[in-house]
Amino acid sequence: MAIGASKEEATSRRIRLGMVGGGQGAFIGAVHRIAARLDDQYELVAGALSSDPARAKASAKDLGIADDRAYTSFEEMAKAEAARPDGIEVVSIVTPNHMHAPAAKAFLKAGIHVICDKPMTLTVDEAKELVDLVQSSGKIFALTHNYTGYPMIRQARAMVAAGELGEIRLVQAEYPQDWLTERAEATGSNKQAEWRTDPARTGAGGCIGDIGTHAYNLACYVSGLELDELLAQLSTFVEGRKVDDDVQILLKWKGGAKGMLWASQVAVGNENGLKLRVYGTKGGLEWTQADPNYLWFTRFGEPKQLLTRNGAGAWAEGTRVSRVPGGHPEGYLEGFANIYTEAARAIHAARDGSPVDPAVNYPTVQDGLVGMQFIQAAVASSAAGNVWTKVG
Amino acid sequence: MAIGASKEEATSRRIRLGMVGGGQGAFIGAVHRIAARLDDQYELVAGALSSDPARAKASAKDLGIADDRAYTSFEEMAKAEAARPDGIEVVSIVTPNHMHAPAAKAFLKAGIHVICDKPMTLTVDEAKELVDLVQSSGKIFALTHNYTGYPMIRQARAMVAAGELGEIRLVQAEYPQDWLTERAEATGSNKQAEWRTDPARTGAGGCIGDIGTHAYNLACYVSGLELDELLAQLSTFVEGRKVDDDVQILLKWKGGAKGMLWASQVAVGNENGLKLRVYGTKGGLEWTQADPNYLWFTRFGEPKQLLTRNGAGAWAEGTRVSRVPGGHPEGYLEGFANIYTEAARAIHAARDGSPVDPAVNYPTVQDGLVGMQFIQAAVASSAAGNVWTKVG
Amino acid sequence: MAIGASKEEATSRRIRLGMVGGGQGAFIGAVHRIAARLDDQYELVAGALSSDPARAKASAKDLGIADDRAYTSFEEMAKAEAARPDGIEVVSIVTPNHMHAPAAKAFLKAGIHVICDKPMTLTVDEAKELVDLVQSSGKIFALTHNYTGYPMIRQARAMVAAGELGEIRLVQAEYPQDWLTERAEATGSNKQAEWRTDPARTGAGGCIGDIGTHAYNLACYVSGLELDELLAQLSTFVEGRKVDDDVQILLKWKGGAKGMLWASQVAVGNENGLKLRVYGTKGGLEWTQADPNYLWFTRFGEPKQLLTRNGAGAWAEGTRVSRVPGGHPEGYLEGFANIYTEAARAIHAARDGSPVDPAVNYPTVQDGLVGMQFIQAAVASSAAGNVWTKVG
Amino acid sequence: MAIGASKEEATSRRIRLGMVGGGQGAFIGAVHRIAARLDDQYELVAGALSSDPARAKASAKDLGIADDRAYTSFEEMAKAEAARPDGIEVVSIVTPNHMHAPAAKAFLKAGIHVICDKPMTLTVDEAKELVDLVQSSGKIFALTHNYTGYPMIRQARAMVAAGELGEIRLVQAEYPQDWLTERAEATGSNKQAEWRTDPARTGAGGCIGDIGTHAYNLACYVSGLELDELLAQLSTFVEGRKVDDDVQILLKWKGGAKGMLWASQVAVGNENGLKLRVYGTKGGLEWTQADPNYLWFTRFGEPKQLLTRNGAGAWAEGTRVSRVPGGHPEGYLEGFANIYTEAARAIHAARDGSPVDPAVNYPTVQDGLVGMQFIQAAVASSAAGNVWTKVG
Repeated sequence: MAIGASKEEATSRRIRLGMVGGGQGAFIGAVHRIAARLDDQYELVAGALSSDPARAKASAKDLGIADDRAYTSFEEMAKAEAARPDGIEVVSIVTPNHMHAPAAKAFLKAGIHVICDKPMTLTVDEAKELVDLVQSSGKIFALTHNYTGYPMIRQARAMVAAGELGEIRLVQAEYPQDWLTERAEATGSNKQAEWRTDPARTGAGGCIGDIGTHAYNLACYVSGLELDELLAQLSTFVEGRKVDDDVQILLKWKGGAKGMLWASQVAVGNENGLKLRVYGTKGGLEWTQADPNYLWFTRFGEPKQLLTRNGAGAWAEGTRVSRVPGGHPEGYLEGFANIYTEAARAIHAARDGSPVDPAVNYPTVQDGLVGMQFIQAAVASSAAGNVWTKVG
Repeated sequence: MAIGASKEEATSRRIRLGMVGGGQGAFIGAVHRIAARLDDQYELVAGALSSDPARAKASAKDLGIADDRAYTSFEEMAKAEAARPDGIEVVSIVTPNHMHAPAAKAFLKAGIHVICDKPMTLTVDEAKELVDLVQSSGKIFALTHNYTGYPMIRQARAMVAAGELGEIRLVQAEYPQDWLTERAEATGSNKQAEWRTDPARTGAGGCIGDIGTHAYNLACYVSGLELDELLAQLSTFVEGRKVDDDVQILLKWKGGAKGMLWASQVAVGNENGLKLRVYGTKGGLEWTQADPNYLWFTRFGEPKQLLTRNGAGAWAEGTRVSRVPGGHPEGYLEGFANIYTEAARAIHAARDGSPVDPAVNYPTVQDGLVGMQFIQAAVASSAAGNVWTKVG
Repeated sequence: MAIGASKEEATSRRIRLGMVGGGQGAFIGAVHRIAARLDDQYELVAGALSSDPARAKASAKDLGIADDRAYTSFEEMAKAEAARPDGIEVVSIVTPNHMHAPAAKAFLKAGIHVICDKPMTLTVDEAKELVDLVQSSGKIFALTHNYTGYPMIRQARAMVAAGELGEIRLVQAEYPQDWLTERAEATGSNKQAEWRTDPARTGAGGCIGDIGTHAYNLACYVSGLELDELLAQLSTFVEGRKVDDDVQILLKWKGGAKGMLWASQVAVGNENGLKLRVYGTKGGLEWTQADPNYLWFTRFGEPKQLLTRNGAGAWAEGTRVSRVPGGHPEGYLEGFANIYTEAARAIHAARDGSPVDPAVNYPTVQDGLVGMQFIQAAVASSAAGNVWTKVG
Repeated sequence: MAIGASKEEATSRRIRLGMVGGGQGAFIGAVHRIAARLDDQYELVAGALSSDPARAKASAKDLGIADDRAYTSFEEMAKAEAARPDGIEVVSIVTPNHMHAPAAKAFLKAGIHVICDKPMTLTVDEAKELVDLVQSSGKIFALTHNYTGYPMIRQARAMVAAGELGEIRLVQAEYPQDWLTERAEATGSNKQAEWRTDPARTGAGGCIGDIGTHAYNLACYVSGLELDELLAQLSTFVEGRKVDDDVQILLKWKGGAKGMLWASQVAVGNENGLKLRVYGTKGGLEWTQADPNYLWFTRFGEPKQLLTRNGAGAWAEGTRVSRVPGGHPEGYLEGFANIYTEAARAIHAARDGSPVDPAVNYPTVQDGLVGMQFIQAAVASSAAGNVWTKVG
């Protein structure tokens, strides 16, 4: 694509948004707020940003949230906002993992849509409860498996679905990082490392839940496959660490495809190396998160093609969630924003009682359940001595 | 950098923003709005989005601008907004080039800060007038040479200034594109191509003004050098085109450094290939816009280093204008937003009567003049048979 | 390294070389001959190039081999050459796999050194016999695991051994190709595909023996680790194929390191994608065969370095087996030639009764046994339902 | 291409080769010998390897040259070899530049073919003399502009010639190095730096003759264009250096195409960064010497393709001079060897009185003249104050 019109939708009907978690100093809360803001479909009007009252107030003030809508508990917030005529329509849950489920339930019960960070819950049982609750409530539930928001990932999924790769044989996913190479959680100055390696807050899996689940979600999203069995080797390389920091998994997909998944937090030299490769009888795809505007595609027997976001060879599925012309890179925040904007499209439709555009898609509560089943199976497989384990 | 706190500043004191140009279907207007929104420092409350009344209204409505603040002329808007107690504090000018200067003057005279797209004016004389007017008005004027907003460009500039490269010998800049390889302006369906190749609206230079000036601005910004002389070979390869579509320039910098600058709109296979290389007595740097989170750095006699935004080896100058951890790519919109947010910091300081943080920087009216002098010299050199021409 | 002296050793004392296999139309025979010739340490003077007499003669003639030294059986050749005063000192065995062991035995028994292609034998038992025979004969046996000949692989091994990476935690190897994506062996026109997928000639493993064993050898060579257990998932994706065409293996190394190994002949878009990544407590390395002059190295917490062959940051271990300055790429044939030239150094020392330079190294009969144990364990693991299997 | 037969030609009729220059410690002599040896078409039997008798003898001995054919002057060698029934058929001249012409003349006059390093002579006049002499002698003269030997360069040239790019508009060549960033010639330990910066031995141009001429030759070879005018800015950045170490040139090609050429020996971080980009009305090509097995190709409006040597999308022109399958990298020595092997094909044909295969091509004495005209024009342009100068 040459220089053309940038895409923007009407922003005059912003959705009233609340947030749980994400006070001053948090990482992912700020990301969610930028994501919500990017396409101007939301207005942040309430928050339970911290359980500490002073920090909750101060954080709210910074964000332009009125004093009387700065809560210190999500229960209180759900109740109060549900009672207001101008109450929030949707809440973002950006707390450590252990609070995702309780908060989500509270808002769903209060009739409020939910956008929730991943992994969705601590256990499969909690996840199933949430599936039931979403279903019975009729509310929208979007899970921020943000990497599915990248335009070239949208295109990859569409290409697989359209048969461009033929029958899928191999799905290889990896997600190496290095930030936990040393025992950062013991320094006393790294809040992120602390909660992400604390089983009480992060769940039974460390690396598997934090990033392994992202890689798995992406593999499912693009390939369209469902997993049958896995065999996992979870390791804890750093002495004293309470959760796994490296994950190596063999995959058997339903229908006969095979695959491998590797996630690591101790692979020195990798910042955030999420990568997906899919191979079929007719073609192959390769995508790397750090360079997300490119998608390598090869038809068997033909030269490799470097497809670019909004460039020659771009598909509508990617262009639909892209903002600027090819060659002007979009990144992590834009991909994250796509989850928010897709959810906004669904919320607008719900508000209006109109049907959702069938092109709209975002990770759902069902994807959250699938993710928890994956984590549970991986942890169980590893604990049993790295044995084949059915998923789901 | 590992996963750490994302950066966000207080957004409760948003600046009231107006916009001239950028109605439905425009490219750069939407980009400016996203850039203004990203860090939540602005609120768009008024606009002269189109000279066509219906389009102006409809565009304003989409953007949540009140009906009575949807203007059809910038003169009217400047006057009306200056008169309101809640009038805009700053205006974004995102029209075709020929309207930049008239609009900027109107708002400066009305006591309103200006953020203006580049190239700043059609002529050097207009640019000088604007320099004077900004000076006399005491208002803030920011020019959206957005590529200076990329964190790794900030770091590159800081590294050069700190002497990491030694004395600079070579500055090589290039900006190839291919979107005007054929006569897109004659198809009747490409508004961007039409005005960007129409001398009345784009100015005397085509490619030189549209992208050559970006490359030049970046070269000056990073190297800290001033140009002495240039020799330009401007070409029009596409038959019937009224402006240049390829630009090749030799550079003599003050102090003895040399350089080359190439910009093209007919280099097939290049989407938006802005690239800068700087070499000194002690080291070298290389940066590419399409992959903006990387900066190659070599100290003479040592291995090449791949520096990453917010990663190991990141400097404070880049981290300061970065939002997410290393490995989570930021892109074009984030770089563009940095110009807006830097301007916001200056505007907040002006509003409060407090000094601006010395780290704050954005392209100024002076940079705009330097850019126009470059365009003028290049056009003159080429017209005179590609001869050496003093700049400024 | 800047432009400096190219390396070359005295070539006046060339070693008399014979070859078994590698007649007209063969792939790897020609590669071996170029490898032998590159540093001018060998003179090809005899051959059993084909079992077909006419083809054997014609092939010999092309190569300048005298008529009376063009044999049609290796037994005859071993006998005749051993009897000549000017008989060959070393033989290259470049036949399909099933003939490696018989031929090697014949020459060793005749007192002739052996250079042999990989995998060394069809079975572990054969391999053990060969180990014993080499030991009792006192002859030199070099196995052409050619990828260990690349200079940056030499450097990688040296860096690991020197502790630059700290204690090794992870060794990830992969070797995707795509040339057997379709059933090439059934077309009647692809000799390579035919024998490499015929269990009688290639052995029990297909992909595992052809390329999996290369990846494994490289992983061992660089990491210095020994494998304890593996769990393999061998697949045959192409209908009608008699051997595996995709291999996915989990690795447990002695001492606690973990790893994954993937080899495939059906991964569309991969020509010859051998890649190795090694991570330790202090640093990480990454190397790709298709771009062999580069080695990525990261010390934890420092910027990534791109080390180059003979460039800044090059180690003596790599420079020793390199011929031209940094920036002048060496490739597959040069790496292959290094195995031949290292063997030549050992043969010269043996000839002279002098000690071998301790820096000299090439894959030995012991490495061949280790490779066969790996293949056998992988095949057994997979056949037993992908279960953990001890190696060796 | 999948794994297939490696290419090799009959080597039984080796050509008798002599060498002038290239004794112990020289860089390019060893490269020429490997290049001559790679495809086994030559046998080195005589040499005037050094003007120092002891070094000449010792060097010859190392290379297996008989004592009585180890000369100390090329005049003597030309005379003696011409008189022998088994005298050399061709000589390689690998001395510093100033001796190229005298040596070449001596051998041509003695009826011996010549392979000569570049730049061909010190002056255009010498070059013209050589053109005449080659013509009148009927002997073969091959100039080792080795980069034209790379398979993907052969393919690039064929693609341009076949019209795949349409009408050529732009030819951009660059060749940055950094090995002369400091005054290496003054250290007393760098022979290469000494003679390459000594006008008496290297000629009037330093960087322009050493590497600028390579870049220019490549640009001509691939584009098929002839240069009309140039404007050059030669710089000497290192104090005390006697020749240029950086070259920046604007190009006007006959027929209307434009271009830029940059060569540098002081661009820190560049080992040997020869790069060529060619753009036409229909497509674009990009090739980089450090990664020579790749060729980027884009048809306007279609995705970028990464063509690979001997891979899918390979053309016969490249495959013809390639030895191993795609994915098995070939490098500098293989490209260099192609010049030797192409010359061998011509010499064989001359020997047999048979016609040369029309596909055979190598740089000729005419290319050498064109190169000298380029150097002369660039030096003249720069000396006259960087003015437009006709070439030829």
